[in-house]
Amino acid sequence: MEFDLVIRGGTVATASDTFAADVGIAGGVVTALARGLPDGRETIDATGRLVLPGGIEAHCHIEQESSTGAMTSDDYASGSRSALFGGNTTIIPFAAQHRGESVVATLEKYHERARKSVLDYSFHLIVSDPTETVMRKELPKVFADGITSFKVFLTYDKLVVSDEQLLDILVTARENGAITMTHAENNALIKWMVKRLLAAGHTAPRFHAVSHPAAAEAEAISRAVRLATFVNAPLLVVHVSTDEGATIIADARRGGHPVFGETCPQYLFLTREDLDRPDGAKFMCSPPLRDAKLQADLWRHLQAGSLVLWSSDHAPYRYDETGKLSAGPDAPFPRIANGMPGIELRLPLLMSEGVNRGRITLNQFVALTATNAAKLYGLHPRKGTIAVGSDADIAIWNPGETRRVAQAGLHDAMDYTPFEGMELTGWPETVIARGRIAMRGGEMRAAHGDGRFLKRAPFDWTGYSAARPPELDPAIAFGAALL
Amino acid sequence: MEFDLVIRGGTVATASDTFAADVGIAGGVVTALARGLPDGRETIDATGRLVLPGGIEAHCHIEQESSTGAMTSDDYASGSRSALFGGNTTIIPFAAQHRGESVVATLEKYHERARKSVLDYSFHLIVSDPTETVMRKELPKVFADGITSFKVFLTYDKLVVSDEQLLDILVTARENGAITMTHAENNALIKWMVKRLLAAGHTAPRFHAVSHPAAAEAEAISRAVRLATFVNAPLLVVHVSTDEGATIIADARRGGHPVFGETCPQYLFLTREDLDRPDGAKFMCSPPLRDAKLQADLWRHLQAGSLVLWSSDHAPYRYDETGKLSAGPDAPFPRIANGMPGIELRLPLLMSEGVNRGRITLNQFVALTATNAAKLYGLHPRKGTIAVGSDADIAIWNPGETRRVAQAGLHDAMDYTPFEGMELTGWPETVIARGRIAMRGGEMRAAHGDGRFLKRAPFDWTGYSAARPPELDPAIAFGAALL
Amino acid sequence: MEFDLVIRGGTVATASDTFAADVGIAGGVVTALARGLPDGRETIDATGRLVLPGGIEAHCHIEQESSTGAMTSDDYASGSRSALFGGNTTIIPFAAQHRGESVVATLEKYHERARKSVLDYSFHLIVSDPTETVMRKELPKVFADGITSFKVFLTYDKLVVSDEQLLDILVTARENGAITMTHAENNALIKWMVKRLLAAGHTAPRFHAVSHPAAAEAEAISRAVRLATFVNAPLLVVHVSTDEGATIIADARRGGHPVFGETCPQYLFLTREDLDRPDGAKFMCSPPLRDAKLQADLWRHLQAGSLVLWSSDHAPYRYDETGKLSAGPDAPFPRIANGMPGIELRLPLLMSEGVNRGRITLNQFVALTATNAAKLYGLHPRKGTIAVGSDADIAIWNPGETRRVAQAGLHDAMDYTPFEGMELTGWPETVIARGRIAMRGGEMRAAHGDGRFLKRAPFDWTGYSAARPPELDPAIAFGAALL
Amino acid sequence: MEFDLVIRGGTVATASDTFAADVGIAGGVVTALARGLPDGRETIDATGRLVLPGGIEAHCHIEQESSTGAMTSDDYASGSRSALFGGNTTIIPFAAQHRGESVVATLEKYHERARKSVLDYSFHLIVSDPTETVMRKELPKVFADGITSFKVFLTYDKLVVSDEQLLDILVTARENGAITMTHAENNALIKWMVKRLLAAGHTAPRFHAVSHPAAAEAEAISRAVRLATFVNAPLLVVHVSTDEGATIIADARRGGHPVFGETCPQYLFLTREDLDRPDGAKFMCSPPLRDAKLQADLWRHLQAGSLVLWSSDHAPYRYDETGKLSAGPDAPFPRIANGMPGIELRLPLLMSEGVNRGRITLNQFVALTATNAAKLYGLHPRKGTIAVGSDADIAIWNPGETRRVAQAGLHDAMDYTPFEGMELTGWPETVIARGRIAMRGGEMRAAHGDGRFLKRAPFDWTGYSAARPPELDPAIAFGAALL
Repeated sequence: MEFDLVIRGGTVATASDTFAADVGIAGGVVTALARGLPDGRETIDATGRLVLPGGIEAHCHIEQESSTGAMTSDDYASGSRSALFGGNTTIIPFAAQHRGESVVATLEKYHERARKSVLDYSFHLIVSDPTETVMRKELPKVFADGITSFKVFLTYDKLVVSDEQLLDILVTARENGAITMTHAENNALIKWMVKRLLAAGHTAPRFHAVSHPAAAEAEAISRAVRLATFVNAPLLVVHVSTDEGATIIADARRGGHPVFGETCPQYLFLTREDLDRPDGAKFMCSPPLRDAKLQADLWRHLQAGSLVLWSSDHAPYRYDETGKLSAGPDAPFPRIANGMPGIELRLPLLMSEGVNRGRITLNQFVALTATNAAKLYGLHPRKGTIAVGSDADIAIWNPGETRRVAQAGLHDAMDYTPFEGMELTGWPETVIARGRIAMRGGEMRAAHGDGRFLKRAPFDWTGYSAARPPELDPAIAFGAALL
Repeated sequence: MEFDLVIRGGTVATASDTFAADVGIAGGVVTALARGLPDGRETIDATGRLVLPGGIEAHCHIEQESSTGAMTSDDYASGSRSALFGGNTTIIPFAAQHRGESVVATLEKYHERARKSVLDYSFHLIVSDPTETVMRKELPKVFADGITSFKVFLTYDKLVVSDEQLLDILVTARENGAITMTHAENNALIKWMVKRLLAAGHTAPRFHAVSHPAAAEAEAISRAVRLATFVNAPLLVVHVSTDEGATIIADARRGGHPVFGETCPQYLFLTREDLDRPDGAKFMCSPPLRDAKLQADLWRHLQAGSLVLWSSDHAPYRYDETGKLSAGPDAPFPRIANGMPGIELRLPLLMSEGVNRGRITLNQFVALTATNAAKLYGLHPRKGTIAVGSDADIAIWNPGETRRVAQAGLHDAMDYTPFEGMELTGWPETVIARGRIAMRGGEMRAAHGDGRFLKRAPFDWTGYSAARPPELDPAIAFGAALL
Repeated sequence: MEFDLVIRGGTVATASDTFAADVGIAGGVVTALARGLPDGRETIDATGRLVLPGGIEAHCHIEQESSTGAMTSDDYASGSRSALFGGNTTIIPFAAQHRGESVVATLEKYHERARKSVLDYSFHLIVSDPTETVMRKELPKVFADGITSFKVFLTYDKLVVSDEQLLDILVTARENGAITMTHAENNALIKWMVKRLLAAGHTAPRFHAVSHPAAAEAEAISRAVRLATFVNAPLLVVHVSTDEGATIIADARRGGHPVFGETCPQYLFLTREDLDRPDGAKFMCSPPLRDAKLQADLWRHLQAGSLVLWSSDHAPYRYDETGKLSAGPDAPFPRIANGMPGIELRLPLLMSEGVNRGRITLNQFVALTATNAAKLYGLHPRKGTIAVGSDADIAIWNPGETRRVAQAGLHDAMDYTPFEGMELTGWPETVIARGRIAMRGGEMRAAHGDGRFLKRAPFDWTGYSAARPPELDPAIAFGAALL
Repeated sequence: MEFDLVIRGGTVATASDTFAADVGIAGGVVTALARGLPDGRETIDATGRLVLPGGIEAHCHIEQESSTGAMTSDDYASGSRSALFGGNTTIIPFAAQHRGESVVATLEKYHERARKSVLDYSFHLIVSDPTETVMRKELPKVFADGITSFKVFLTYDKLVVSDEQLLDILVTARENGAITMTHAENNALIKWMVKRLLAAGHTAPRFHAVSHPAAAEAEAISRAVRLATFVNAPLLVVHVSTDEGATIIADARRGGHPVFGETCPQYLFLTREDLDRPDGAKFMCSPPLRDAKLQADLWRHLQAGSLVLWSSDHAPYRYDETGKLSAGPDAPFPRIANGMPGIELRLPLLMSEGVNRGRITLNQFVALTATNAAKLYGLHPRKGTIAVGSDADIAIWNPGETRRVAQAGLHDAMDYTPFEGMELTGWPETVIARGRIAMRGGEMRAAHGDGRFLKRAPFDWTGYSAARPPELDPAIAFGAALL
């Protein structure tokens, strides 16, 4: 039993267990969890530390053009670096198809961009133009190549898919073993509000929240879940920001359908009132920030398992003319890029305010930040856990360290963080990626290009109501009882 | 106290009361309900009979082109005559805007067509092309002229409105005192099913039901109710054919919103299995016939008040080359005109199977067939009840008469009835329209042209959660708490 | 057509209609509703007035000992007088069995007490000791004698019935055509809270509300509705004071069960904060006053028909040593008699704040205050409406009159009203009972003893899911599918 | 790194992960999970085998008198042996207080009985007589001694606790770190049905199911959950047998309360129709067997996490005069002992029909059969998982072995199994208890008395809505907002 690296004396946690053990690593994978392992070629003392699976950041925008045209400030170099410092070892950014573009071309472009990544990566494909060619020829190939999740938008004029397209996509995904993700807000309702608000001269950032009411999200989630349930296709609703939305998702799951929900730190740590600040544009995202009641609701849904993913939705548009202010400092809210950064703070926020305050267990932390994403997105058991045979993707945390958040201390290419000034307890000290120390004591040791593309497995139906999807054409299958 | 007509010795019923009284009529209106009235110029002996408000048929297609182009077999002459023989005294057919057409022109056309009507009438306007001109200029005028309800479709490619248009329409209606009606089925889901069914060679009428699943109705009702609730506008969902749909509507009403539902005889007396008959095309309507469970569900919703209107959705396309078979006897189901006749049997069906079997009270019968429509559509108290001052629109029923339904005995211009052969107990013997005997003993006494256009009052908000709609622009109003 | 009395020129309203008509009365009943009636022996000018069915006060405690032993201040003389001045023409107080007492004896006692009544009356029997003799021998006789409703308590140690007794009672009632009423609060939960509050020294009136949480009502309503549904017996929950309770009731009704709910003015016009006044004991009732949210909820439920009765729960214990203060001015809350007066203000409160503020229609007012009670309690159509053949029980209201409530102006035997100082618009001016002017211009013309006992009809199942109850023994019936 | 025992080459599963690893055991605990471990003093080849945490049987009746007086056929010798052969390593039978008995005495008796156990054990205390002494003096001591769960019955005359007692118990448990378990059926409803069924001569076993309707369970679960929620105390509902019950539990959990549910194999593999067999008495249990719909519902709830425990409710009354037939072969159903055996088949049934048929994952199997019980009952991480430092309680399964169930092959003291004849795939071959081979190849190697009493930790609130229970007296705490 020889090890390249041994982590000694820490407290290891998985999604189900917490135990004291040394971790032995060889060939980039965990080969032993044991008491009293011999030293490796390198040995880290983790006494008093938590040894956790590296985070999987499954919702982030890196080197991607926004729907308003702005390019994210973070490319794969800075974005993956920031993720690393935040305790992550895998990222799954979006590869966004432009209308008229082949998704194969889209992916080639993103593969090229991602060569700079410090961390292992995959992509969620964003499909905005589901042409016949895309649907019949390209997507099956994309799925076969290991891109087994993709996102569709129910809002944004340049991205929105129709209900008919959504049905086609859900079924195509299902037939190819992929899972469909959706940004669910009712596009019409938002546009209708925006038009009226602008007509009334309500252009400040705070009206962004007014224009994106909870009703818009609840309607779109309801619709997407009904359609996915109808064709018995897996669905994952990203950045859920309403109690009603989370409840609809959980009810569908209880009804026997593979329907899942994700939420993000901003909805639990910020509120709509932040939009009233002079720099309110920094706090614009979609769905928008809401209120304190939502924060309590979302903690409850995380605890009860109604929402299974905790992602950052890192969307790094700087608060300057390259990003948020590209249309000028007094631009009306629809001309301000949506989104905010968070890739580096996603885990510390949950560790500090979730685990350390007793709201969630350490095992729930692991599940929400790594294991569940690995399982839903076809990376498990290679990623998302600390187990014999898994990639040695590990973050060693000092649970007692307290730091005040400051943009100056972060590693992305941004000029602000919406969480500036928060005092958080519990930070990653060392991050190991495929067995190599990638970050330690605030110093990056990994190199750009160390990251590898991850070919992901198909969506696994086991444990959901139907062990596998019906094999017939769904229109026939679902009408079968009637035929 | 002198009377043109006295109805002596009958049992009078309103939506709340049942009592023995003579009815005295003068000048076309009821002027006395009393014991021992003197004879009028004419006196009818109603001993052993029920004296009920004439029915208001609030959902029927008369002299209207279908979405597949076929013209209804009934024009205002035959349609109103058939309604009369079925115990009705008022009809509110649809006036359907074609795309590109001014709704003012639409109404002029229908006013012209309706001159032949035996019975008083109004129109629901169908809006399929809500242009700026229609919305801003024409509709306010239409509403001011007493057309205070109109229908939008969430399905049919030639009629469907988008969510954004629906919001505009709901708000325009609300601001002008009108109520929006909707045919709620998800267009995309139906089209998606139709395409796949046809591709699989499933073209027979029975696949019409397969192609219009309950999920399509439930989704569209859910969406329409959410949008109407968001802008606080009254909404009436026509021909509800799912338990889930009725429940959504009733929940919204309980939540304080003026949201209402209607259903039709076909959903309580026929099932999807009727589509399997050799002449299955006769039984095609949208939403489609479903099953026995739905029948029980709908009785329950009628009893509990979740559904408040009982209409025929009379859509008279003959079972010949002018109607159902216009695309040939073996045409695939999407090329067969939807709908079935029922204007003459709507009331006898409910009297026989509802009242006489003890499922509903006589007062519920009156409410479902006349009073509720009068109230929701701005005709009350002139129409829809027997009360001093109301129009003397009265049907005298023989509750004990049993007849077997036969098309030969009906008075429309159809060549079939879907209810052929049913044995019903309780039939109208005499119908009085604005004080004149319009039908008696199977003989029509009224003349074509006796009917008058009814200018209807605005939707009355009293008794709903908000006594009246907010006065602000709704986008502002609903965001008010956030502004 | 000769009349003892004619009411000329008013606006008549029933539960469904509102119309201008003269009302002709002869032999104590309405014999004509008409335009231009000739004068009667007496004629009242009702120009500008509302002519409404006299109220039926279906929940009041008159000449009854409380569960703490105190006698109500009102006997049948003062109680019926006060009801009369409040626009009522019928009262249905409770006849309360004491444990160990024959219910036949109970009723004899109350029949004797009620001889003084100014108004027609019946009783709801309170059963607190359902012995074999009471259940098998006495109750069937009581029901046959026209007492077709009775109440059981799920709280108060001296009154509470067990679940097993409740099932027996529900079935006995059903088999005999009666309806069971229930005061639904979980006795155990209340006692448990009281014990702990007293142990902590929390004895002031305000802790009465703390000791009777909403959870206690919701649990008991849930349980009672489940049991009634199980044996398919009609149930009426009195004085509902929670949104959850009203929702449970309405859901059961929608599910096809004859389950109904009542509420009372105090829950819409007072709040728990009134208990904080120096004379807080005046505001103690069970269930207790709650908060502003409940007020909005209850308006919503009244509008949507989830709650169908509006009663006073008049429980007149004076604020002196004969009533509230019998255990001394500083008695702990459990020793203070529960209840408050309201029999004279029940209708003016709803007229002013419901009808005049546009929350409910005049027809809903009539339904909630008279017609629904008449129907549910077997008095319709004799009572509860203005229709030909019905008793001429009529209240003539001046809808524009504004008065400030003052105990000095009321006619009960109380020394306070909880509504002191409220300014209400809309008051009854004249009340006619069985055709005779019983009150006019603030002067009582009726005499004690004018009231007659009303023999009530069995509960009418028509219009509920089952037209009539199953005929088998329910244990067998409900297990029938399994046998 | 030296090991007493090494399990080589198997596939290890925990509640979250599945991986290939050798398991190294020393001193009775797992000390290594690794690839390529050296041999131990003993080494087991587990190639092609599943290496799972030994089952924790958390609901079984061993050496316990039934409520009808019958003694279980299994004592701690046979009961633990049978559990062992079924893949279990820990049992938590009940220690049942008789009325009038000190619970300290109860436990002494059961400690004595359990000395014969092959497996480690704890007890759930059944409290049927919550006197002041029991509540204030004995229970805190019992909890401090590591018995941190106990059960109360809401049914059975000799066991039932009142709502007030339940509140006291819930709060006492909460204050002492214990969790309350409940058998939730409405006692009154069952008694009422039994009485009527017997009176009608319906005495056969099949009427047991009729007498215990789903409504009885749903009501009692609803009530127990409401009361537990009110006092914010953890609650676990055992043997849930209704969709409605499971839904109520899951809704409470989603609402932020630590409320949990368990179900048992009989409800997923048998139906009420089994009671119709000539030996129907064998299939009597409470709640009773129901139908195929329930089976589908419960699979769904297990998949969605609405129900978190899978227990046998092993209640071994022989089908002879010592057990089921003690009152004679034709005894009416209430005189037949309730319950059926299942301790040895609990795991094989779920492995075969759950895991092997793809309904649940192997990780869900581990969670449902071991980990969740360990967590809820204060045994984790010592028991319920395979992790470094945990007791080496391991079952090695042959996932491909198929056997037909036969009582002759089981190891309890019963004369029948209700699952006789079922063909199951996946059986435990070897069981290791605290590091020692307790069963291998169908041979028991452990000795009676090898089992040790397990002192359990308090209920852990982390991860539920409130990180810890309020510290105030609950009556005050829950009324706090009102005080």
